[in-house]
Amino acid sequence: MTSATSLFSPVEADLRVLTENLKQLVSARHPILFAAAEHLFGATGKRVRPAIVLLISRATMQELDITPRHRRLAEITEMIHTASLVHDDVVDESEVRRGIPTVHSSFGNRVAVLAGDFLFAQSSWYLANLDNLAVVKLLSEVIMDLAEGEIQQGLNRFDTDFSIEAYLEKSYYKTASLIANSSKAAGLLSEVSEELAEDLYSYGRHIGLAFQIVDDILDFTGSTEALGKPAASDLKSGNLTAPVLFALEEKPYLEALIEREFSQAGDIEQALAYIKESTGIDRSRELAAHHAQLAVQHITKLPPSEPRQTLINLADYVLSRLY
Amino acid sequence: MTSATSLFSPVEADLRVLTENLKQLVSARHPILFAAAEHLFGATGKRVRPAIVLLISRATMQELDITPRHRRLAEITEMIHTASLVHDDVVDESEVRRGIPTVHSSFGNRVAVLAGDFLFAQSSWYLANLDNLAVVKLLSEVIMDLAEGEIQQGLNRFDTDFSIEAYLEKSYYKTASLIANSSKAAGLLSEVSEELAEDLYSYGRHIGLAFQIVDDILDFTGSTEALGKPAASDLKSGNLTAPVLFALEEKPYLEALIEREFSQAGDIEQALAYIKESTGIDRSRELAAHHAQLAVQHITKLPPSEPRQTLINLADYVLSRLY
Repeated sequence: MTSATSLFSPVEADLRVLTENLKQLVSARHPILFAAAEHLFGATGKRVRPAIVLLISRATMQELDITPRHRRLAEITEMIHTASLVHDDVVDESEVRRGIPTVHSSFGNRVAVLAGDFLFAQSSWYLANLDNLAVVKLLSEVIMDLAEGEIQQGLNRFDTDFSIEAYLEKSYYKTASLIANSSKAAGLLSEVSEELAEDLYSYGRHIGLAFQIVDDILDFTGSTEALGKPAASDLKSGNLTAPVLFALEEKPYLEALIEREFSQAGDIEQALAYIKESTGIDRSRELAAHHAQLAVQHITKLPPSEPRQTLINLADYVLSRLY
Repeated sequence: MTSATSLFSPVEADLRVLTENLKQLVSARHPILFAAAEHLFGATGKRVRPAIVLLISRATMQELDITPRHRRLAEITEMIHTASLVHDDVVDESEVRRGIPTVHSSFGNRVAVLAGDFLFAQSSWYLANLDNLAVVKLLSEVIMDLAEGEIQQGLNRFDTDFSIEAYLEKSYYKTASLIANSSKAAGLLSEVSEELAEDLYSYGRHIGLAFQIVDDILDFTGSTEALGKPAASDLKSGNLTAPVLFALEEKPYLEALIEREFSQAGDIEQALAYIKESTGIDRSRELAAHHAQLAVQHITKLPPSEPRQTLINLADYVLSRLY
């Protein structure tokens, strides 16, 4: 399995600059945020979102260098993502993420709410100062979608009537919207055609969905150590993802376990057994592969280049995380 | 004493439309937010911020009617303000505001963080869709300033070296920036001259500072009932405001009480006695009056009109809350 770092080699230097910039942008003025920034923008993140923005920037600028605005867009993307993680961890009361304690568990609710607000505020400000109204609209849509997704996830806990379509919609809001809209925004900064901009959006949308479905499968198949958070934590909190939703079609008794919110001893173990016996994980893998393929189809019009090839390889990489 | 409602008579109908719009914008899609929206945009708010935006809109449009964009700006202003209150109440662990329980105490941290994020997100989105990059920049500055102000307030709790200048800076971030920048933005939507736009900013800045200083005085002189929150709550939480900072110059022993964070029985009562014996409240009142006067000086160039007169009267109204 390729590591994310070697996969992103065409933008490796760009990602190093980005990480340093993010730490400085966030922590420069406030000691209270310094610790949080080290924590948030430290070594553990995979930087998938800014990597995609940078790859699309390089793939669309061709022989020309990418501009400071492309770089700033990549930084904004990571800031928005991080802000939403920090607040999600407060809302979901998560203790661990990527193997390290969350801001909310290390520094308390107060700092987590402030740090998230500060990151959202700073991203809005940098966004406005990109001086491109179309890009501002795309990314403000993302911020809306993230809030919408978190609310939908909260409303549908332990809801066994939750459909795969509703799950994909929620996954779009929570994950794919950011990748889709920032991919399109990178294209707009390179002044691509309207048609190519839509293709870049679709690439981001489908790769984002594939990414989320794979993450949701790993919640069942990965170890706590590999996940950096407790295994099956989505299921326990009632966040019903693709493997569960498919399994529900085959294992009627699973419904009862979920509806009583795993309140009896052994319920979680029983539910996990049902899911593993079902075709839920296989069907989820097929769904992820389907979206990864659709993603690739949308960037065939980009002229051949190393960054374009990396965007194609990324679709394989997303799926390879399952093996 | 004039009530805020009769004071705002030139925009009374506008404010009614605004209140209905806000309730609908926020609660339309989500039952989870419906209760919070009723709570937030119900009858208790004074709507000072959108009233100022609407008055400036009418004063600068003269015989022409205000546009849907002016109205939307007023709504965005109130949404941003409300979002920041909801998160501040989580950060400050406040139980009561305007005489009713806060969102965080009624619905818990989870809903309060989500509701605040949703309001910030929605305001960013409506803002981007005003299609005016200069206005987007002004209001994104406000969102940064609000986060900055809350962080500064947190960093300076019980800090007896906090100066009046630092207090005014923090008050600008927390209160005046929103009024100043939205006043200027209303002018930009009316296509006023650069010079008048700066005057509108200064009007908002000074009226905002006067407003905050008066609020800070009322924390000492008002009853719990009139305040809608416990009296002297700023002092107890270590938020040192103008009356305390002036009193510190005259009552050296006050410093010791603050530095030990009122940890001994009777400390708060003793501190309040020192502040009331000092000239702190009188000097704060003079400071508020000074900023109210400066505010009025900045709108003398507006052509005479009923809304302009209301903006002038507002400066007296702010001070009249002290009597």
